[in-house]
Amino acid sequence: MEISSTFDNMPGLTHDRPVQTSSFCQQFASVDGAGNYDVVNNVVIPTPGAPDPRAQNSLRQSWEMNYQEAAIYLQEGENNDKFFTHPRNAHALSAYLFAHNHLFYVMELLTAVLLMLLSLSEAPAVPFLRLDVYVHATLELLALAMVAFELCMKLRWLGFHTFIRHKRTIVKSCVLFIQFIEAIVVLVRQTSHLRVTRALRPIFLVDCRYSGAVRRNLRQIFQSLPPFIDILLLLLFFMVIFAILGFCLFSANTADPYFSTLENSIVSLFVLLTTANFPDVMMPAYSKNRWSCIFFIVYLSIELYFIMNLLLAVVFDTFNGVEKMKFKSLLLHKRSAIEHAFQLLVSRQRPDGVCLKQFDGLMRFYRPRMTARDHFLTFKALNHSGATMLSLQDFYKFYEVIGLKWKARWSGEHWFDDLPRTAFLIFKGINVLVKSKAFQYAMCLVVAINGIWILVETNMLNDGISWTHAVPWSYIIFLTIYGIEVLLKITGLGPLTYFSSGWNLFDFSVTVFTFLGLIALAFDMEPFYFIVVLRPLQLLRLFKIKQRYRNVLDTMFELFPRMASLGLTLIIFYYSFAIVGMEFFADVVYPNCCNTSTVAASYRQINVTTGNRTILEEGYYYLNNFNNILSITLFELTVVNNWYITMEGVTSQTTHWSRLYFMTFYIVTMVVMTIIVAFILDAFVFRKNYSRRNREPLDDPEDEKGIVFETEVSQTEALQTLDMYKYTLGVTNLSSLQDMCVALERSGHSSLVFLGRRSRTKSDLSMKMYEEEIQEWYQEYSRTNLQPDETFHRELDSPEASATNSIN
Amino acid sequence: MEISSTFDNMPGLTHDRPVQTSSFCQQFASVDGAGNYDVVNNVVIPTPGAPDPRAQNSLRQSWEMNYQEAAIYLQEGENNDKFFTHPRNAHALSAYLFAHNHLFYVMELLTAVLLMLLSLSEAPAVPFLRLDVYVHATLELLALAMVAFELCMKLRWLGFHTFIRHKRTIVKSCVLFIQFIEAIVVLVRQTSHLRVTRALRPIFLVDCRYSGAVRRNLRQIFQSLPPFIDILLLLLFFMVIFAILGFCLFSANTADPYFSTLENSIVSLFVLLTTANFPDVMMPAYSKNRWSCIFFIVYLSIELYFIMNLLLAVVFDTFNGVEKMKFKSLLLHKRSAIEHAFQLLVSRQRPDGVCLKQFDGLMRFYRPRMTARDHFLTFKALNHSGATMLSLQDFYKFYEVIGLKWKARWSGEHWFDDLPRTAFLIFKGINVLVKSKAFQYAMCLVVAINGIWILVETNMLNDGISWTHAVPWSYIIFLTIYGIEVLLKITGLGPLTYFSSGWNLFDFSVTVFTFLGLIALAFDMEPFYFIVVLRPLQLLRLFKIKQRYRNVLDTMFELFPRMASLGLTLIIFYYSFAIVGMEFFADVVYPNCCNTSTVAASYRQINVTTGNRTILEEGYYYLNNFNNILSITLFELTVVNNWYITMEGVTSQTTHWSRLYFMTFYIVTMVVMTIIVAFILDAFVFRKNYSRRNREPLDDPEDEKGIVFETEVSQTEALQTLDMYKYTLGVTNLSSLQDMCVALERSGHSSLVFLGRRSRTKSDLSMKMYEEEIQEWYQEYSRTNLQPDETFHRELDSPEASATNSIN
Repeated sequence: MEISSTFDNMPGLTHDRPVQTSSFCQQFASVDGAGNYDVVNNVVIPTPGAPDPRAQNSLRQSWEMNYQEAAIYLQEGENNDKFFTHPRNAHALSAYLFAHNHLFYVMELLTAVLLMLLSLSEAPAVPFLRLDVYVHATLELLALAMVAFELCMKLRWLGFHTFIRHKRTIVKSCVLFIQFIEAIVVLVRQTSHLRVTRALRPIFLVDCRYSGAVRRNLRQIFQSLPPFIDILLLLLFFMVIFAILGFCLFSANTADPYFSTLENSIVSLFVLLTTANFPDVMMPAYSKNRWSCIFFIVYLSIELYFIMNLLLAVVFDTFNGVEKMKFKSLLLHKRSAIEHAFQLLVSRQRPDGVCLKQFDGLMRFYRPRMTARDHFLTFKALNHSGATMLSLQDFYKFYEVIGLKWKARWSGEHWFDDLPRTAFLIFKGINVLVKSKAFQYAMCLVVAINGIWILVETNMLNDGISWTHAVPWSYIIFLTIYGIEVLLKITGLGPLTYFSSGWNLFDFSVTVFTFLGLIALAFDMEPFYFIVVLRPLQLLRLFKIKQRYRNVLDTMFELFPRMASLGLTLIIFYYSFAIVGMEFFADVVYPNCCNTSTVAASYRQINVTTGNRTILEEGYYYLNNFNNILSITLFELTVVNNWYITMEGVTSQTTHWSRLYFMTFYIVTMVVMTIIVAFILDAFVFRKNYSRRNREPLDDPEDEKGIVFETEVSQTEALQTLDMYKYTLGVTNLSSLQDMCVALERSGHSSLVFLGRRSRTKSDLSMKMYEEEIQEWYQEYSRTNLQPDETFHRELDSPEASATNSIN
Repeated sequence: MEISSTFDNMPGLTHDRPVQTSSFCQQFASVDGAGNYDVVNNVVIPTPGAPDPRAQNSLRQSWEMNYQEAAIYLQEGENNDKFFTHPRNAHALSAYLFAHNHLFYVMELLTAVLLMLLSLSEAPAVPFLRLDVYVHATLELLALAMVAFELCMKLRWLGFHTFIRHKRTIVKSCVLFIQFIEAIVVLVRQTSHLRVTRALRPIFLVDCRYSGAVRRNLRQIFQSLPPFIDILLLLLFFMVIFAILGFCLFSANTADPYFSTLENSIVSLFVLLTTANFPDVMMPAYSKNRWSCIFFIVYLSIELYFIMNLLLAVVFDTFNGVEKMKFKSLLLHKRSAIEHAFQLLVSRQRPDGVCLKQFDGLMRFYRPRMTARDHFLTFKALNHSGATMLSLQDFYKFYEVIGLKWKARWSGEHWFDDLPRTAFLIFKGINVLVKSKAFQYAMCLVVAINGIWILVETNMLNDGISWTHAVPWSYIIFLTIYGIEVLLKITGLGPLTYFSSGWNLFDFSVTVFTFLGLIALAFDMEPFYFIVVLRPLQLLRLFKIKQRYRNVLDTMFELFPRMASLGLTLIIFYYSFAIVGMEFFADVVYPNCCNTSTVAASYRQINVTTGNRTILEEGYYYLNNFNNILSITLFELTVVNNWYITMEGVTSQTTHWSRLYFMTFYIVTMVVMTIIVAFILDAFVFRKNYSRRNREPLDDPEDEKGIVFETEVSQTEALQTLDMYKYTLGVTNLSSLQDMCVALERSGHSSLVFLGRRSRTKSDLSMKMYEEEIQEWYQEYSRTNLQPDETFHRELDSPEASATNSIN
């Protein structure tokens, strides 16, 4: 379909018609009251027309629609949204736009978090947060209504057919339905029943737009499951065989409670797998016959040291493959999104390129906050060939360039270059000083002395810390030195340069904390004493000296976002298990409970007479309960040590089946933990291989970090662009472009170089690592000319690897 | 140097003079009374001579020397002995030959083992093995004298200068000297003093020729140490910072013994690193303030879940690099050895090739047990070009071919092909039956039923096993089925084919064990009841069905030798630590000791009155002592769980410094364990990458496993070879060749194909994996034309990777 050719009075580009028209446009065209163009079954019938203002208006609107749809395509590419969820008409578009802005996202997130937080107040509640049943049930109904509203918007955007195909949404709807009914039941009965389904609440959180990372982790976990389960079965199989052996060998010993029945035998060996009951489990048998240790040594060697490590190896290997496949599918998806967008941006007259005008139109939708100057600079950065238009090849680089932050390169190096001579010399001196090796080593020496000082000082306080009001003089001296260092560095380097380095930020904040600690001490503000305690963190600075440590700490910071998302994933599992645990085990353990179990001692809290002495035995394990969601019992189970005490305690107060809960939890956390190990391994090995292959260490000097693009803008170019924006596009907010022109004039040079910077992402590294393979993928992609969605589905069918098995 | 030209009456090749003469030869030549050749400063002066029998004899001897030296070179290549230890003259040769045969190796090993076993009888001895001081001291002196004798032989072979350069030998000599003096002191004083130096005894074992694998492991451990230590320091650093924080935060709580002093604080956090005292360490603080759990969560997240995994990643990465470098250096060393040998085998007339005669001469020294037929077949297998001589290119394949076991390919498939018709049909039927899927699945079904049977049966014996004399009928039925299966398979496949499969061997041995168990039950032989208990192992057969499990189990068996050597390495560490532990901590823990420590309960063994009930509390930890070398305390420390109980128990009875021993032990085992994990990871990932790259699964059908070479021998060729051997070489034991000729005649074909087989090694896989890189290495090697020793030293200097840093 096409809009009729019009001639309009704007110079340059506006009389171009788009090659392809947005699917939203049909709708709008009919709203405009079409008159001067016909569309008959996609066959274009150009109607001759005069420069009709209505037609012109319609053309402009048509372009706007195109820009918007292109921006949506690019957004979908960025977010890895599949194209079958692409809005198909104007109604869908409005729903799409409604459901795709940060306000909506935040609302989605808050609703989900609220739903999850409700379990703080529902029985069994955290004491000081307890709410009445009708209050929390009403809150829940409200939150669920919000979720229902969000789902309606989604239905409107996707249409019924697509909605049904979208698995995650369907699951969410079902859960929503159940929860709704349950909430109403609770309201009617005015009392909570056994609500295990609350364990499904995290689904709402996982479905949020902002939880993309968690979704990715979950997907990766599910993909690693099949091989994991295979090896797990092998593990359990050996466990059962050894349990039978152990039962046959040791059940004759009445002093041995661990192998008295087959069930005990299996449970003991399961716990032994986690080493939590070793060597106790061996001791009764060992005290009777020394050779019985062979059984345990063989069991541990096979299960713990071989199969458990094999499990890690299998997960690591799968993880490796999945990471690469994910990267590939994302890359091809983005490429396809760019192609879709490009098709919507080219005009009939110039079908091979995108002009600045169209690019600016796109960017107004894609990045509304970006200034016109940055649009122009991004366009320049993309425009590799130097022609006036962007070819498809240029446009492929879109995602690499879009995140850049642009800044003019200053002629001077230092912030004080423009100051008077004397001031310049002083600052220059400071600059040279703080950059000198001697200064750095001196500071490290001070830190080291401070560290030793703290160590010695602490070691001498053998009878506990006593907070004296008198601030020790060493504290003041060291703080002064650090304060002077910070001041020198800020003045010498300029605040901007100073704060752009992570290490300096760290120094600064530790120094500020130390200062706050001083104030707390001096004014006797007891609750803030913990700040004083953070002083030893200064010692971390010592690690700047050695390359390998810098590497490790950098890796640590690089991994942090992903680790955080893995932690969040773990917390979601915790939440579900906590709900189930609370429903079944709330208030079952208390001091001096569990006297019938083998772990009674850990719960005992009384005076014990041993021979002729009386000791207070304090078993704290009653604290590891399921009484409310803030108990950290599940974290303790994750750490695994002594977890069987909690298990046995609960089991002795409930039924044997409770063990199933604990064992399932162990296996689930084992999966997540193995994934975490595999992830760290993979990230580290990838980093090392990268620097090995490119013979380029990843640890450049700090200021050269990240991706840098350079673009030179000449004065005439800048003025032309300004004119074009002013007269052609009719954009009013051009201050950024005007500033650029002013800066150009002031600098006295005929041109100015702008630097675009962004931090380097894993994707950039992968691009370089898999350079050759990427070319192959592209060729394969263009050969088969499949939509990435289809490629993706084909991959899913292939047993090898399925990169993304659910729709994002 | 060269021997004068002679003309001798042997046809063919014997008048050839070697291009290069063995370094041993000079000596022998002078012994012969040289007259007809002169050597002046390596310049060859041919002296004209008649066919003098002495000269001829001398020439033959010269060739023999060459063969021997070439064989030694090849041996050095195989064993990765550096060439600077190559014997340089006839004296060295005789010492070399003396020190390089299995008798000597076995003696070396026995002496080392004897020395290590002595600690069983030395105080503190295993009770029933206690010997008087003068007995074990005399034994020790004898063993040390043997070691001294071995060292003397080595000195004679290496010469003083090389001896001094060989680090391992020097260390060994020093240790020997110290032990000698100590043994004499013990004999004189008639009582053992504090002999911590006994911890050095494993050095003698490590130095044995047969302990090559252990040496390789140790080397790998030492190579992984530098990055390991760096990360370890980071770990300890964070530990100290957190210890200071913990001391400041929790020392005010008098109920908290874990953070009462800075030392306790550090020890608690060290133990927490191993999770062994979690959650107990947290509980006193947690019961006072719920927020204190944050401290522990942060500590565990950083230390346990991040840095510990990073440690693994670093070791894994280093391990990866080291494995490849090791492979490279070994490959180049072998290549160099082959080149050296080749130079000694070519004659002046044919400087580009090695004839069968020379090859046979070499093989007589290199593999004295090999038959002449196999020499000939190996020669044929090497001879890729089909020429009469081996070029250097052919000869490079020497190590790939040398391990082959040769067998004529039989025309028939089955062992019963030659039987009469009826018998053939019966056996053929059985063969088809046992090979059918149905039979295999039926057997699996039987095994599964048997498994469930055992499980149910065992589960019903809730009050422990009672050994009745009546054998249960199910036992007999299942045993009969298995027996029939084994018989059918053996008759159907033939014993040879049957026993060549590992799985069948496993089936067979389990069935035999079950049968032995039956006998034990029937004849009431109580000590053998444990055999009955092995029955559930039958269930392992179920894993044959699924491909992945076969893979896993195959990997398991493949890894076994290396795992065993790693286990041995671990045992060597155990030994040293055990000696130190025994010297310091023997008899310090006993029942009801350690009442002053926090772990008193684990050692308590008395009636405890709790409220109004009396319980027997039995703390078994006094069994985890250092009273003799057979205690498995160190294994328990390796498993890590509850290790702090042993540590605290010992510490409370000795001094605080004892903790250093336990902490050092933990760190050492951590290194070894990390290496084990890295090794399993590496092996698995390598296997997977291999099958991915070669698109060829490693799990071929069983009979196609391994490396197979084919060689076709025609009748005329065989006869010619036989003649040549008979008349030219004067070898008398030609039965193998004659057999071959007879077989050829009998078969009626003009030629017979021989198959050479050997199992596939890691080296074969690596050859294929690194195919391209290997070509690069070869090019680099021939370009620089360095001796591998030098290449190796250069690699050592480069920080990247040092493959083999000590002389093997």
